[in-house]
Formats: sequence, C-alpha cells, structure tokens
Amino acid sequence: MMTRKAVVLLSGGLDSTTALAMAKASGAECYALSFNYGQRCNAELAAAEGIAKSMAVTEHQVVNIDMGKIGGSALTDDTIDVPEDEPEGIPVTYVPARNTVFLSFALGWAEVLGAQEIYIGVSAVDYSGYPDCRPEFIEAFETMANLATKAAVEGEPIKIQTPLMHLSKAETVKAGVELGVDYSLTVSCYQANDDGKACGKCDSCRLRIKGFYDAGLADPTHYF
Amino acid sequence: MMTRKAVVLLSGGLDSTTALAMAKASGAECYALSFNYGQRCNAELAAAEGIAKSMAVTEHQVVNIDMGKIGGSALTDDTIDVPEDEPEGIPVTYVPARNTVFLSFALGWAEVLGAQEIYIGVSAVDYSGYPDCRPEFIEAFETMANLATKAAVEGEPIKIQTPLMHLSKAETVKAGVELGVDYSLTVSCYQANDDGKACGKCDSCRLRIKGFYDAGLADPTHYF
Repeated sequence: MMTRKAVVLLSGGLDSTTALAMAKASGAECYALSFNYGQRCNAELAAAEGIAKSMAVTEHQVVNIDMGKIGGSALTDDTIDVPEDEPEGIPVTYVPARNTVFLSFALGWAEVLGAQEIYIGVSAVDYSGYPDCRPEFIEAFETMANLATKAAVEGEPIKIQTPLMHLSKAETVKAGVELGVDYSLTVSCYQANDDGKACGKCDSCRLRIKGFYDAGLADPTHYF
Repeated sequence: MMTRKAVVLLSGGLDSTTALAMAKASGAECYALSFNYGQRCNAELAAAEGIAKSMAVTEHQVVNIDMGKIGGSALTDDTIDVPEDEPEGIPVTYVPARNTVFLSFALGWAEVLGAQEIYIGVSAVDYSGYPDCRPEFIEAFETMANLATKAAVEGEPIKIQTPLMHLSKAETVKAGVELGVDYSLTVSCYQANDDGKACGKCDSCRLRIKGFYDAGLADPTHYF
C-alpha cells in the first residue's frame, strides 16, 4: 500500500504543531510548509524549523511571499500596533486573506507531490474572530480546490483536514501532550523576541495561557 | 458617488491586458497586480510594467513569490521543456494552483483597498486546458472569497470579474482593439527573449497568432 502524503501548514505555533502531530499519528507522510511573509516576528519561523526537524517531516519548505506589500495588518504593517487588549469583532492582527493564500500554496505543492490531504490548524472554538478559520470557509476552499487542480480533474480529490476545528485551546493542548508534542518548541506570541520569548499580553498569548490553565497543564512557554 | 475600485491581475499578456482595458472602460479605478513567481521569462513582467504605465492604473504592485520552490511546471521548472507541439489534455505548462494563488493575493489586496471587484482574464473558450480557467472554478473561488474576508463578513461582497470567459481569442483581440489596446506592448510567449520577442511556436504563441488571424487583424507581435 502506498503511504498517504499530507502537506501540513506549519507556522511554528501551538495549533499548527498539534495539527502536524495529528497528521503524523494518522500515518501520513508529512510535508511541512511555512511562509516568510513579512511577519514582524522571526521567532515563529525559527520555531517552525526546529519543530519540522524534531518531528522528522519528510520535507520542510519555507516559501517567501510579500504579504507586507499589500499591508493592512498589525502583523505585517509596522505602522499598526499589536493591541494588548482586544475589542469585540475582527482584530487588527487579522492578515487579509492569509489562510486563503497559505492554503493556495499548499494546494499547489500537494498537486506536485501527489498529496491528497492538506492539514491546517484552525479552530472555530477559540478562533480570535478571524473569518478564514470557520468551517464554512474551509468547506468552500475545499470545493474550489477540487475544481482548480489537474489532480482533481483527473479524479484524485483534495481533502482539507482541520483536526482542531471543534477543539478548544485546552482540548488542543491536551491532545498534543498525549501525542508527545513538546510545546516549549512552539511560539504563539505575535511579538516574541528573537529568542522565542513571549510577551504574555497579546491576543495569541492570552489564548495560549488560558488553554494551558484550562487543561490543568504546566505552560512551558518562556515569557520575557 | 464613490469610484468603484478594482484589482486587475496583469501578467503582461494579451488576455490580462484586454481585461484591464475592460475594467477601465467600466469606470472602475484600477489597481494592477503582477507576480514575479520564478517564471522563465522576464519579458512578460517588463511588459506588465509598461502596460500599467501606458494605461495609467492608480497603482501597480509586483509581488515576489516562490512558485519555483514547489516546482511541477515547464514555466517555473528549468528541467521541463516548453513543448512546441501540444498533446491533448492538461499541458505541462500548467502551473499548479497558479490562478488560485494569484486570486488569493488579489483578494487580500482588494480587502485592504476596499475594492469589491477582481478582474482576471481567463477564458473557457481558447483556454489551453487549464482547470483553473473554467467558470465553475471562478464561481467556487468567489463563494470561498466571500467567506474568507473581513469585508465579506461585514457585508461588502467581492465579485470576480471574468469579461473574457466566453470570448474566443479572436473576439478578445477585436474587443481590445476597439478599446484602443496596443497589443504590441503585450507578451504572450512562454519563452520570449529579453526584448519581448516571441518564439511563435509555443502553445501560447499559437493561440495568439490564430486569434489575430481569425479576427482578420494585423498581428503586431515581434517574433524572433
């Protein structure tokens, strides 16, 4: 039997690392895909490289893309501050069409590799209010993907796997710990320093802290 | 009344240039978007810059992306030859998920600009057999786009405009000439030289030559 291949979007954060652990546990041969997209924080990408190595993926690609050129987010635009107290609604840390762009590259690579699965660690539970983390977005992307590619036209449909979709942050952390994930390697903070130390104040840090707390597990994150 | 804004995907070829002329003719304020994606041929991108200038778009962005890293096409992979005689089916010049990736960036920029239209010069008539040029793909992308973005969630839907979808190459050329398009500025060839001179033999050249011939119009292309 041929091994299934999966492209796994790997940011270096808690969620994508857990999704990678789940893809591996499913028996798929994993190809990790990260992006250098003008994000403020290099620690996340360095974390992705360490995680890809420690989890022994078959291949890890880091693709350079100019998200900064189109601007519009606190994560890629230096003129917008990362907020430490989030109001209701879609936050300014939302990067326009980011998951759409990332999934599109994953789709292209999946087609080249002959992979039929793409893993993305989005969750509709503790999801920060980003529209491109919702199940209806993922379903629409999958439908589009299966009309976009040579592989799909020739009858090998692509499945977008979202194993965290219905998990809270606490449930994600618990599942990851059961699979042996070393969360000290992961960086969630929007403004981590170059050593990977986290602020503990941004939206992403606050969700992560609450996740470990609710799971009743020790938080291995290094804060500055 | 506020001017409508449109993001127009501009490769520098015949189709995208005609789509830009149509977007302008519709009264939209045009933002042209091109990609440096590791394509073999620099002449196309130089053509896009010249066209954006001559057609006085509001802004022209050239985004660098590493399509070459994921490989798989004769257009980005130097180890695959561009064929001069095309067999049936999807050709090797098809770039995996290219239109999906391009439209995703356009979507992100549209959201930042507050543009509600994205123009892409695809045609289902003389379409070279690429799956991501078909109307069902475009419709699925639009559905996905309207679930992906902050703008859509807040009630400003995105429309993917495909004014060439049901036009033959000859009809496209005729429409463009009526709108004053100077096709000598455009480069369609997959292996044009640095002066923008075309081979006259590849799939794209053959479709273009036939288009001018069928339209009964002089072909202003420079061949080498």
